[in-house]
Amino acid sequence: MIRPSGRAADQMRQVTLTRHYTKHAEGSVLVEFGDTKVICTASVEGGVPRFLRGTGQGWITAEYGMLPRATGERMQREASKGKQGGRTLEIQRLIGRSLRAAVDLKALGENTIYIDCDVIQADGGTRTASITGACVALVDALRSMKQRGAIKKVPSVQMIAAISVGIYQGSPVLDLDYPEDSAADTDLNVVMTDKGGFIEVQGTAEAAPFTPQELTAMLELATAGINELFAAQLAALAD
Amino acid sequence: MIRPSGRAADQMRQVTLTRHYTKHAEGSVLVEFGDTKVICTASVEGGVPRFLRGTGQGWITAEYGMLPRATGERMQREASKGKQGGRTLEIQRLIGRSLRAAVDLKALGENTIYIDCDVIQADGGTRTASITGACVALVDALRSMKQRGAIKKVPSVQMIAAISVGIYQGSPVLDLDYPEDSAADTDLNVVMTDKGGFIEVQGTAEAAPFTPQELTAMLELATAGINELFAAQLAALAD
Amino acid sequence: MIRPSGRAADQMRQVTLTRHYTKHAEGSVLVEFGDTKVICTASVEGGVPRFLRGTGQGWITAEYGMLPRATGERMQREASKGKQGGRTLEIQRLIGRSLRAAVDLKALGENTIYIDCDVIQADGGTRTASITGACVALVDALRSMKQRGAIKKVPSVQMIAAISVGIYQGSPVLDLDYPEDSAADTDLNVVMTDKGGFIEVQGTAEAAPFTPQELTAMLELATAGINELFAAQLAALAD
Amino acid sequence: MIRPSGRAADQMRQVTLTRHYTKHAEGSVLVEFGDTKVICTASVEGGVPRFLRGTGQGWITAEYGMLPRATGERMQREASKGKQGGRTLEIQRLIGRSLRAAVDLKALGENTIYIDCDVIQADGGTRTASITGACVALVDALRSMKQRGAIKKVPSVQMIAAISVGIYQGSPVLDLDYPEDSAADTDLNVVMTDKGGFIEVQGTAEAAPFTPQELTAMLELATAGINELFAAQLAALAD
Amino acid sequence: MIRPSGRAADQMRQVTLTRHYTKHAEGSVLVEFGDTKVICTASVEGGVPRFLRGTGQGWITAEYGMLPRATGERMQREASKGKQGGRTLEIQRLIGRSLRAAVDLKALGENTIYIDCDVIQADGGTRTASITGACVALVDALRSMKQRGAIKKVPSVQMIAAISVGIYQGSPVLDLDYPEDSAADTDLNVVMTDKGGFIEVQGTAEAAPFTPQELTAMLELATAGINELFAAQLAALAD
Amino acid sequence: MIRPSGRAADQMRQVTLTRHYTKHAEGSVLVEFGDTKVICTASVEGGVPRFLRGTGQGWITAEYGMLPRATGERMQREASKGKQGGRTLEIQRLIGRSLRAAVDLKALGENTIYIDCDVIQADGGTRTASITGACVALVDALRSMKQRGAIKKVPSVQMIAAISVGIYQGSPVLDLDYPEDSAADTDLNVVMTDKGGFIEVQGTAEAAPFTPQELTAMLELATAGINELFAAQLAALAD
Repeated sequence: MIRPSGRAADQMRQVTLTRHYTKHAEGSVLVEFGDTKVICTASVEGGVPRFLRGTGQGWITAEYGMLPRATGERMQREASKGKQGGRTLEIQRLIGRSLRAAVDLKALGENTIYIDCDVIQADGGTRTASITGACVALVDALRSMKQRGAIKKVPSVQMIAAISVGIYQGSPVLDLDYPEDSAADTDLNVVMTDKGGFIEVQGTAEAAPFTPQELTAMLELATAGINELFAAQLAALAD
Repeated sequence: MIRPSGRAADQMRQVTLTRHYTKHAEGSVLVEFGDTKVICTASVEGGVPRFLRGTGQGWITAEYGMLPRATGERMQREASKGKQGGRTLEIQRLIGRSLRAAVDLKALGENTIYIDCDVIQADGGTRTASITGACVALVDALRSMKQRGAIKKVPSVQMIAAISVGIYQGSPVLDLDYPEDSAADTDLNVVMTDKGGFIEVQGTAEAAPFTPQELTAMLELATAGINELFAAQLAALAD
Repeated sequence: MIRPSGRAADQMRQVTLTRHYTKHAEGSVLVEFGDTKVICTASVEGGVPRFLRGTGQGWITAEYGMLPRATGERMQREASKGKQGGRTLEIQRLIGRSLRAAVDLKALGENTIYIDCDVIQADGGTRTASITGACVALVDALRSMKQRGAIKKVPSVQMIAAISVGIYQGSPVLDLDYPEDSAADTDLNVVMTDKGGFIEVQGTAEAAPFTPQELTAMLELATAGINELFAAQLAALAD
Repeated sequence: MIRPSGRAADQMRQVTLTRHYTKHAEGSVLVEFGDTKVICTASVEGGVPRFLRGTGQGWITAEYGMLPRATGERMQREASKGKQGGRTLEIQRLIGRSLRAAVDLKALGENTIYIDCDVIQADGGTRTASITGACVALVDALRSMKQRGAIKKVPSVQMIAAISVGIYQGSPVLDLDYPEDSAADTDLNVVMTDKGGFIEVQGTAEAAPFTPQELTAMLELATAGINELFAAQLAALAD
Repeated sequence: MIRPSGRAADQMRQVTLTRHYTKHAEGSVLVEFGDTKVICTASVEGGVPRFLRGTGQGWITAEYGMLPRATGERMQREASKGKQGGRTLEIQRLIGRSLRAAVDLKALGENTIYIDCDVIQADGGTRTASITGACVALVDALRSMKQRGAIKKVPSVQMIAAISVGIYQGSPVLDLDYPEDSAADTDLNVVMTDKGGFIEVQGTAEAAPFTPQELTAMLELATAGINELFAAQLAALAD
Repeated sequence: MIRPSGRAADQMRQVTLTRHYTKHAEGSVLVEFGDTKVICTASVEGGVPRFLRGTGQGWITAEYGMLPRATGERMQREASKGKQGGRTLEIQRLIGRSLRAAVDLKALGENTIYIDCDVIQADGGTRTASITGACVALVDALRSMKQRGAIKKVPSVQMIAAISVGIYQGSPVLDLDYPEDSAADTDLNVVMTDKGGFIEVQGTAEAAPFTPQELTAMLELATAGINELFAAQLAALAD
């Protein structure tokens, strides 16, 4: 099996995390997994949704979008269609759930952090890149809250990162790009914490069912890849 | 650990599959997993979506809904809200993907089968009950297509069934009901074929991350449970 | 004139009212007029719409829906279309108005009762079956309010029932089923109280205008039919 | 009983029908029932809805709207709310059904006539004024179709007119204005043909149920009033 | 160059302003620029949008609509389409901005004036006719507020009027009607105050770019035309 | 008068145009006017809107969006609101009209070019930056059409650029940034061709009306600024 990109089965694409990418958001990161590029911002607002009012607890929620020509063929803009599609809603629910696992929401006070992940160029793995970049933006937003006195101390964060793995031409491979993704037998997205626990495991057989052995092999690849992502996040945050 | 229902950790709820539940649809099944009750219909229409026209291939798509008072608290009707929520879209995409794995779409000719899963009473596990019941309705719809000559022979079907498992109070349990589901640390939905392959594995850490060992334990429970479901499907179809 | 079902002109279909049909709602009734089957629930919530706040008065409102394959041809789901059609809105307005005539709203306190009528199988007369079943669900909901102390005593209820009549092949007939309804010259829905007064009279000439004499004949048929429905309601509530 | 307007129980308001009220539509009528003023246009377009294509038959459909300040309190514009309310849909369905009874649709060829009824000032009875005025606009549109050769001859038209009657302070009254309408015990809208047949009879008990005797009395008042409307239509069309 | 209407290049159409056109609104004006006819109402409501609450300041906002058959071809009703088009939103934003320039909003107290401009017949220049008529309706609404004590004195109003000019067949012309508008090289809408200042200048090259000299010539024509409109407004308000 | 940025009254911000910014679109430009950053793509698709089918002529249309946190305060995403706001529609109509003036649409054949302008960081002047950047993307798209044979030769393009000017603290200034824009007395957007003609002139008095003299002064500033933009476009296209 030869990957379209010539990468080894366990080789990730070049990952870069550029902090302070735009100037208005409390956290703003451009994340790149090869040619996949996503702007992740974290915006802080006072107040929480109705179901949390009076609890002293905060909230983290996420939205996801793609520019119409982030993809090979132009897609109709969801704002002009008048609704977000099922894929968009599914992805932004995944991002929100994943990031809520990163922080103790009680430590936020009654504040909401809005995560926005906007894909400006897509080449496979946009949801996992989004989660990985958004976690860095979230840390920056927490630091900014501390700085302007909205919270007394930066809450401890369990870093969260995510990667896709799959069965491509019968073999498990790490970090699928678009040509692999569209031809894979199975596609598995994995979200983990830096303590090694799983937050989300979402595997879908596209062409053929997968076996428990294949699942195990994919999860091992994913774990190794996510550890590289944690290193990249730490390096970015240390700058 | 004692389950709220008093069931053993690997014990499923009573499962019943009632065929020909309503009279108009080509396939119509009431599926019950304990107090969870879903009407699953399979409706056949000539024609396929635009992207398949002229290919000679068919299509299977799914929609999911809940009656407003299927739940403990009344939920606003999606038709009057003017849109389907993210959870609904996520579930109906899952049902559709799962059932498309059951049949070779080429054997359908240019026909579309609409699967409708409508929850009339919810007590946890509605999406897995839906998939399990819909697969039986699908078989009935295929038989009806054969009978009225829309297809020459009933295509061979890979049966599909689904169950939820989870970590409840630290232990893996099979077939979560609502009290367990709302208190579980982890919730995992598994869709399998009767050949033993995975079609979907969707695990979400609700309270605490889960370990590879817990994942393995849950998948084993799920596999055993799904085998019981295959038996129930076969028995129903043999009537 | 021979009716498609072989019934006499003044003969109703088999009517059944099954209370406690689902477990969550305060009132839950499956009503069947022959092959027409509707789940009617009555859900109690504290609070009233804005225009009643502070008046001490309650409110009753209704919503109506059909499962996509309740009918001979599958209809598109209103939730996925993004709006309720004119027929749906017309029917649920009729149900709400009718049931508000059953109870003195002042006796409810500032509580709202939501009536949901969901057709799981349609064979003509869904709106009249809905009203007839919902009135029983409403009584159960009032009893449940009394039981949990939301109101001091069950308010006296003026029972409400409804039936359709029509001119079929030149003759007045009672309780039209779908084959009659789609071929009738005139269709008339009548809602009455158990004191014998009219709540709604809605007659529509489908093919030919109707005369005052035909109207009188139809109203007499309807009155007789509705009296049978009151008997069925009383019997159900006596169980 | 003294009516707020001082009219006798069987006295209608001043009715005027002004043809050619606006210049673009094939038929355009300003109808006034006292202070209720509605612009009714009939617009002809080639083609019919999908379900009629190839049948050689035409179609008539109606839409109804109110200017935001047609009423005593400003109502939110339906175009900015993003949907038409239940009352609007109910009324425009009634207008469309009524006018389809006026003409043999086969005589139209595959053309559609759009009826638009826009209330510029409301004082009760807008739906009945709309039907009455729209029937005149329809005749003008048919004549214009003949003139430009879209049809060979003007089809014979069964004139349609409508009036509201009610029980006000215990007595039947004809042609309710807004102060009566909002205080009436019962409100009944009647649509008839110039041959004396009923097209629609829609009675609603607002405060107290009504008796068969009251219904008969109201229908007699309505019949007399509608005859005055037929005379007004004929006079207008003779100009 | 000969204008389709035979008018001189600097000649406006007949302008009429009919006050008290409908009876419910605090201000109600029918404005006619030749065959263009718009009903402009000004409705007063207590309260202001959220961003002004507690400031003691009022607000003026505008909505614009066209009856479906105000135009040569019937347009689909925006209420049934489910949204207002871009042209509608653009025009109502322009009307609102223009009229907010007429009055010191602080003098209104926390009240909102809703301007509704509904075109009943269109023949070019609907937005400028709307602004011109709405300003008169606004004055009437302010007087009515004073009369019923909502404000202590009628605030001083800077009258606002608007006209369109254009380059038609190479020459600047005043007050374009529809045949000119649809064939013009350039279309320029000008809104001015009675002190001679510009509120809005919106010029669009339809066919060919326009020069600074053409812009100057058009603005001079517009200024002269608007002065005629101020005279018409004053005369109407003096009645 | 001292500008917040310290710029001279006739001094523009740093302008950069980065071609080939994303990889999928036929034309893709990042345009920066100081801190205002917009991604402009031009996407080519075969076919034209219905009103042009069979004419042999092409079409250019535009859409505009902002990332939710492009601004100082996060704005709700239009895709999740379910509609594009009035400001968005107004801007995208302006961009589309402006770019259609750049090319003879007949030279495109029956192809459509979609212009997408997505603001990733806003600091005033997003609509004028969008037009200026999109024109460069359009040229790249035309070249790509020629290269793959969709058109025989690259049509001649009349370059289009746009700038905002205003009256700030009583003086005319060029290229307003956000602090100036939000405090300006008047805001004027000007779109010109490289031949010196006006395509659009849109001036709005925000605080005080503006005089003909101020308009002239602003237009002169704008003309000078736009000439700098044409130079920047040419330099970018020469790379």
